[in-house]
Formats: sequence, structure tokens, C-alpha cells
Amino acid sequence: MYVAQSLHRAVQQSPDRLLTIFGDRTRTVAESAGRVARFAGALRALGVQRGDRVGILALNSDRYHEFLLAVPWADAVVNLVNIRWSRSEVAYSLVDCGTNVLLVDDMFAAAVPALREKAPNLATVIFCGDGETPDGMLNSEDLIAAHEPVEDARRGGDDLYGVFYTGGTTGHPKGVMLSHRSMLTSAMGTLATLDAISRGGNLLHAAPMFHVADVAVWIMGMLTGSTHVIVPAFTPAGVVNAILRHRVTDALLVPTMIQLLADSPEAAEADLTTVRRLIYGASPISEAVLQRARRKLANTAFTQAYGMTEVAPVATLLTPADHDDPVLARSGGRAAAHSEVRIVDAEDNEVPRGVVGEIIVRGDHVMQGYWNRPEETAAALRGGWMHTGDGGYMDERGYVFVVDRIKDMIITGGENVYSAEVENALANHPVVQQCAVIGVPDDNWGERVHAVVVLIPGATVSPEELRDFCRDRIANYKLPRSVSFVEALPVSGAGKILKRELRKQHWADTDRAVH
Amino acid sequence: MYVAQSLHRAVQQSPDRLLTIFGDRTRTVAESAGRVARFAGALRALGVQRGDRVGILALNSDRYHEFLLAVPWADAVVNLVNIRWSRSEVAYSLVDCGTNVLLVDDMFAAAVPALREKAPNLATVIFCGDGETPDGMLNSEDLIAAHEPVEDARRGGDDLYGVFYTGGTTGHPKGVMLSHRSMLTSAMGTLATLDAISRGGNLLHAAPMFHVADVAVWIMGMLTGSTHVIVPAFTPAGVVNAILRHRVTDALLVPTMIQLLADSPEAAEADLTTVRRLIYGASPISEAVLQRARRKLANTAFTQAYGMTEVAPVATLLTPADHDDPVLARSGGRAAAHSEVRIVDAEDNEVPRGVVGEIIVRGDHVMQGYWNRPEETAAALRGGWMHTGDGGYMDERGYVFVVDRIKDMIITGGENVYSAEVENALANHPVVQQCAVIGVPDDNWGERVHAVVVLIPGATVSPEELRDFCRDRIANYKLPRSVSFVEALPVSGAGKILKRELRKQHWADTDRAVH
Repeated sequence: MYVAQSLHRAVQQSPDRLLTIFGDRTRTVAESAGRVARFAGALRALGVQRGDRVGILALNSDRYHEFLLAVPWADAVVNLVNIRWSRSEVAYSLVDCGTNVLLVDDMFAAAVPALREKAPNLATVIFCGDGETPDGMLNSEDLIAAHEPVEDARRGGDDLYGVFYTGGTTGHPKGVMLSHRSMLTSAMGTLATLDAISRGGNLLHAAPMFHVADVAVWIMGMLTGSTHVIVPAFTPAGVVNAILRHRVTDALLVPTMIQLLADSPEAAEADLTTVRRLIYGASPISEAVLQRARRKLANTAFTQAYGMTEVAPVATLLTPADHDDPVLARSGGRAAAHSEVRIVDAEDNEVPRGVVGEIIVRGDHVMQGYWNRPEETAAALRGGWMHTGDGGYMDERGYVFVVDRIKDMIITGGENVYSAEVENALANHPVVQQCAVIGVPDDNWGERVHAVVVLIPGATVSPEELRDFCRDRIANYKLPRSVSFVEALPVSGAGKILKRELRKQHWADTDRAVH
Repeated sequence: MYVAQSLHRAVQQSPDRLLTIFGDRTRTVAESAGRVARFAGALRALGVQRGDRVGILALNSDRYHEFLLAVPWADAVVNLVNIRWSRSEVAYSLVDCGTNVLLVDDMFAAAVPALREKAPNLATVIFCGDGETPDGMLNSEDLIAAHEPVEDARRGGDDLYGVFYTGGTTGHPKGVMLSHRSMLTSAMGTLATLDAISRGGNLLHAAPMFHVADVAVWIMGMLTGSTHVIVPAFTPAGVVNAILRHRVTDALLVPTMIQLLADSPEAAEADLTTVRRLIYGASPISEAVLQRARRKLANTAFTQAYGMTEVAPVATLLTPADHDDPVLARSGGRAAAHSEVRIVDAEDNEVPRGVVGEIIVRGDHVMQGYWNRPEETAAALRGGWMHTGDGGYMDERGYVFVVDRIKDMIITGGENVYSAEVENALANHPVVQQCAVIGVPDDNWGERVHAVVVLIPGATVSPEELRDFCRDRIANYKLPRSVSFVEALPVSGAGKILKRELRKQHWADTDRAVH
């Protein structure tokens, strides 16, 4: 099995069907396939060899879609660069996996000089935007026009499809190696488990296409004969416009996007009833947001996928029907048809239902490893299972409730405290704008529950008041014993709170700080 | 991926759900899993080793279902014996792949002495029926009671799942080697392509479970959380009774069964509206039968699967919607999501749409080869494609129309004639009961179209009258130049006409006769 097989099948069965819509630009299946074969020819002519990494740093577009097919067509490996990263992080990943050819669009062309400096291996930069081609870059349309189509290399099976960088919150990003089989197992297994997307529908790409979640849904769309409706990036107005104009039937969004969409003035006035199915991931959706979103999207079935880049990315699925149960709606759902899921203790023994442990995953969708990191690979994949680092428990019917990152768990006086639970309690206080809970050294308890809190501007509250507020919500031993008030929390490029920065102040010179 | 993964998932998610219904006997998921683990323990205790073949010669039952799981659980390979074969054919397959352990039920226990004689390797026979255990056999229930459950060996991926014998019409049967990955690719790919069966439905097994088609649908049922409703063998009354009693939602049948069911007095009076989805294969359905069946099963979506044992078994799928088009309804549908399909000439070059050639198939579902037959394996899998031996053409939208077995094609005066086309024309004549068309040697034409005809009792017709009748239906060069009238046609144990027997009389001492 190989990713481009779906394109060959579409050419055989429906060459005149619309495959991509991007603004006013549309491409049929046959047009898209022709461009892919020519762009693959250009990559070969540029010296790209079997297994080479080819990068892209761009907003969503139809050319991004073509890139996802042309690179394996040329027998190479995609490196989809996180558009939210700093230039240093981007350069790190280009050097780390030896990406010598990079595509950039109008938005990221300006970063190229800095990238060239930090990543001297960057030999060829191809501009795939619509503006003027900057000096020193090739133009992707020129390349397509100038090259003959080549035969598909049919890279597939255990061959690498891509190196997907992840883990910006825990030190240097790691390159997750996902094969064609991993990608297709996750996509086919998800479709075998439930009708995640419509067959032959119009599938919206508003979530960033560099992320494996959107790539997975894109593959599902390729398998089911979807038309890809692509917008450069998420905005409520852009999404509403695309839905109305192109009669979008399916979409992948993250909960924050769902919230922004449901609460937007554009959506308030629009008829969004064409949208039949919506997949979301990255985190469970809050009950309040889900209710508002379901009122606005009354015709839409919600599916949650839980997983991570390392499992390409679907481990469990929460079906539309499960969303009717408010308890289950807080879970990540149950193991998908292709995915084995267990909860284990520190010795990898399965724990009883209801007991929190680490979520581990096994199956053909699991990564081959981290690029050039044999030790971290061996640790993550020990015993043949992907150790997600997520803490969670499983109920009697197999529903997985994610409670925290294992490394964010605090052990205080022998009791396990999940920081997420404490953070959720604190976040309900009316003057708490943002908070992070960590364990800090304590002579009596080993670790002590400590909260770092950002208040809404101008507000004040005492630690004792916060503790009293939490007392109704969580057990006594989980209450924050100490609180610091700060102006802002340190966050990563992807917007995740960097707890390691907070811990550093308390755990200087110890291993705990570098978690 | 491994077949029993679906059982582990069911145990994790719904241990108390009904998994099998066989007459008055029902088993939950947990009960079935417990019995599987104990029976696997018994097999290990009997000396079954990794990769050994374990056979079963039995009608359908819940114990057949358990066998399909327990054998890989014990790290062994299933050999599902064709119940329609002669004792010599059964013995041949047991010897050919070295099956030393065989299960038999009440229906086939009497065959064991003859099998032991012809297959001296048959060391252990296990009785899995409900009557008295014959002398010299073990009893499957005793074995389950006497043995502790063992851990699943987790045989999977490229490990062999089964050796499936096929090809009784063309000499000795050949053992098709199908891995776990082949079986799961076909099942998951079919579910990814269309809603072949309901999720969580009641799935009827009336087609024989030894056939890979029913095994494939059984795996789909395991993946989708179906309850398996099992009847020993197809009868219209038995099927109607099972549908009514157990509210069957899904079924696999062959066209003959559909016809018998639709035309039966039992069905005429019964409410069969619970049946939502019906899969059929082996041959396209005639328009008249389809119309009658759709009238009777007005609530049922029909899906056709085309393929063969060597592709585990699904290559193409004809969707329910396709059945509304009378032209498409005569096709085998289009390539499924997991399956590449092409039509090629004798040199394996793809032919233009509409031109007849050989249907070839590629993908992870294709067999590993024929057991102990490296030359036939290399021929069938040349260039990495499974050469089906079926002649057919593809239309502009990728629909595959199967016209004949390639080897049944007649080349007369440089023109290709497909025997099926001539047979269809002849079969419409009111006094023709049965017919077979073959090529015979001819000094002028190389081969001559020759018809062998069985008339309805007491009728007569001249060759010239038959030719005149066909003249309106087929081109002149396709008309049967000669006709012989016989009392009966030679048929195989599976009911297929043995054209090689007919050819022998004309092609003595030439290669053509042994096709």
C-alpha cells in the first residue's frame, strides 16, 4: 500500500472529478495527477534521490496537496515543517534530518536567508507562492512547466513516507518516522471503525496541513473520493465562506477552532447545514463548547480522535453517538479497529480499569522510531508498544480518559496528583486567566503541589482564597500548597505551556527540571 | 495487524455482548474468548507448533468461528477444507500441506477412515459435532474443559493465516497462502471503500465458512462488532428462520442462494426488512434475479464483490448505488481502496478501455503464493501482479466487466471469442438446458467454436436452428460451427463444468487439452 495509490485509483475511475479547490483555482483529478508527475520529474532532475527528505514551509494550498503526492512519487520523503516554529527550530529540523530541498510560499520566503545561514545543507529552495519569485529560488510552476512527467516510484509499504517533527515542549524537536503503511493503517482503520468522513464529499482543510492529523484526514479523503477544499489558514470568516461557497460536507478542526467558529458573528448568520461530519483532536472538547457548537452545527456529527504523531495519529475514536453521553464526551473514545491500546504501570503491567497509568499503543500505525535517536526510540517503543507519555485510565467499556502527561504527574506524600485536574479546578475561578500546576521539592512531602497563576488584569486573590475555591472540586491532598502569581506563562511556538521552564526555578541542577 | 486483534478489542470494549448465535446456543465475547484461549491451549498440548497447519472439515457452526481464532492463537495456520470435495480431493490437500490435525463434525466424521487411509500423516482427529464422539477421535468440548487458557501467540503481519485450496476445475487443487495482513487488508479496505456491513449488526453466515469469501466477511464482522448468526448450511427455510428469529441485518450470499431465497415460499410470506445489507460474489447476478430479489428485499442494499481466493478475496466492489444502473449491474464494480486493478494483454501491457484482456491485481491483499508450487506461483505473480486468469474489460469510469476465463477464450481465424458470450446466447434458447462452448482444432480456422449442449428432456433441435437463434445475439464469427448433443456435462465437486474433460476428446495428446 502506498499513499499515491489513491491518486492512481482516482485517475482510473474519475479523472474529471474536482480534486482540489483553493480560492478560485480548481484542479481535476487528471490535472492534479499530471502536475504531480511533472513536479516529481523536476525533483528528480534537481538531484533528489531515493529516500531523500524534501521539506515544505507553507500555509495550506492546493500546491501543498500536490507536494504530499509528488515527493513519494519521486521516491523521496516529506518533511512538513511546523509553520509556528521559530527560525531556529525550523533550521534545527532541516539540519537534523538533512533536508536539502525546501519549498516555501509567500508567507515564509522572507525566512529563507536566516534558514540558509543556520542550515547550510539547504541547497535548493523552491518558491510555491503566487507572488514574485525571490532571488536565489526556483519557481514551482516553472519547474512543472519545464519537466516531463515521470513514472511513480511507488514508494510504499515500510518505506518512509515522512519525518514529522514533534515535541517542542520537551527540548529539541524529534523527527517521527512514519511509513506509508503507518499512514494508511491509521486512515483505513479509522474509516473501517466509523464513517469519519463522507464518501465523495467536500473536505475542508483549515487546520494546518503540516500536522499529521490533517495529513491523515487528507489520506482518508483521497481514499473516499473527496474534493479537497483548502483554505490558507483557519479564520472563522474564511471557514464560513468556504463552507457556503463550496458546500463543505466534512472537516477536521481542533477544539479551539470549533469554539472560535461557533462563537463567531460570521457563523451566527450563516447556514452551515451542509457540514455533516466534523473530526477534532488534540484535546477533548469542553462540554460548554460542545453544546454551543452542536447548536450552531445541528446537522453535524462530531467524532473525536485521540492519538499523537507517533501513531500516525489515531489510537482511539469517540463516535458521534458517544457525544450524547456527557461523561463519555470527556473521554478520548475507544481503541480504533487498527489500534491496540492499554493502560500500564511503570513496569508495563496492565492496570485494572479505572486506575491511572500510562497509555500505550501497538499496531501497524506506530512509528518506526525517532530520526537518528536510537535511545529515545528504544525507550518509547519498549516491548513493541508506543509509550505515549500520556496518563489516563480506561473504564469498563474500554473508554480511555486522558488525565495528564505522565511527566506532569506530581507525587506528594505517596499520592499521585495530576496537574491537569488541579489546573481545571483553578481555571474555574473567575479571576484566574491562566495557570500551570507543577511539583516542586518539599522536605515533608517529597513533592508539593505548586500553582503558577496569571490573573485577569487588575484582579487580586490570595492563595488561601484559591485553595478554598478548589476545596469543593478536588481532594485535599491535591490542593496547591503554594501559589506564585506571574504576568505571563512561558509558552512554546505551538502555544503549549513550557512547564520545564517553570520547574527550572525550583529544581535547579536536578534531573526533574529537564523533563 | 492480526486476525485475533479484533477479539481482544471486543473483550476490552464489550465482553458481555453476544458474539455468536448457533441454533439455541449463544456465546458472549468473553465466553468465546475464553473457549478460544483454552482450545488453543489444547492444540499446543497436542503438539501443534508454530506454523503447523490445522484443518477443519465441517458445516458452519459457532465452533467453526472459534477454530478461526484458536488456530492462530496457538501460532498455527488454518486449512479450511472444502466440504463439497470428494474424499480423494480432501486427502490430497491434507497431504499436500501436511495437515496432521483435523477437526470434523457429525456430517463428516464418517469420512475419517477413508481419509486416514489416503492421508497417513493425519495423526489427530478432533470431533467438534454434537453427537457421540466416534472411536479414535478426541472431543473438542472435552479438550476445552481439560486445558487452561494460553496467551495469544499474536501470529500476525506477514505470518501465514491459512492455506486455502482452490482450482478443482484445473487439475489438482492448489493451496493459496494468505497472511494475516492479506486477510485484514481485504477486510479493512472493503470497509473503507463502502459500508459493506452494518456496525454492530447481526451478520448471517449461511454461505460456507470454509470459503475465503465468508471468512473475509466474518473478519469484517469481527472488526465492526457484529454478532455472528450462524446456520449449518444454506437452505431458504433456515435462512428465513434465522433472519426472523435473530433480526439479521447483514449477510453474504452467492447469487444462486439469493435466487433460491427470493423465489422460496418461506420468503414470500416473511418480513425480511431487518436485512439492510447483502454482499454477494462469485458471479454477477442476472438482471431478472436482481429485480426479484430487490422486490423481496426492498430494504436491502446490494453490494457485489469481485475477486478470488488469491486476493483474499476482494479486488473490486459494485456499490448499492451502482446496482440502479442495469449496465453497471452486470459489471464487477471498480477497484476497492486497497486494490490496484488493470487489464493487460499477453505481454502484460495495459490495454485501452473497452478492450478485453486479462484482469490483474496488486496490493497487500494478494497471496504469498501457492503452497509448494514455486513455478505456478512465479507465473501467477509475475511482475508483482496477481494474474487472475479472468478475461475482462474496463470502461471509462473504471468498471470491470468480467467476460470469461482467459483459458476458455477461443481464437478462431484470428478473432477472439469468449465462450461465456456464446454460452449466454445459446442458454436463451427454450430447449437448451445446459451448454458449454469450447475451441476445437480446425484446419481452416486454427480453432473452431464448438458447443456441447444438453437439451431439456424429450426436446430436439438441429445445429442449424441453434445457429439461427444465436445469429440475432452475437456476431457471425462467434456462432458455434459445430454442436454435439449430450445427456449431461462433466462437473467438478463444486458444480463447475469441467471443460478440460470436454476438450480432451478433441485435443488428445496436446497441451490444449490439459488447460
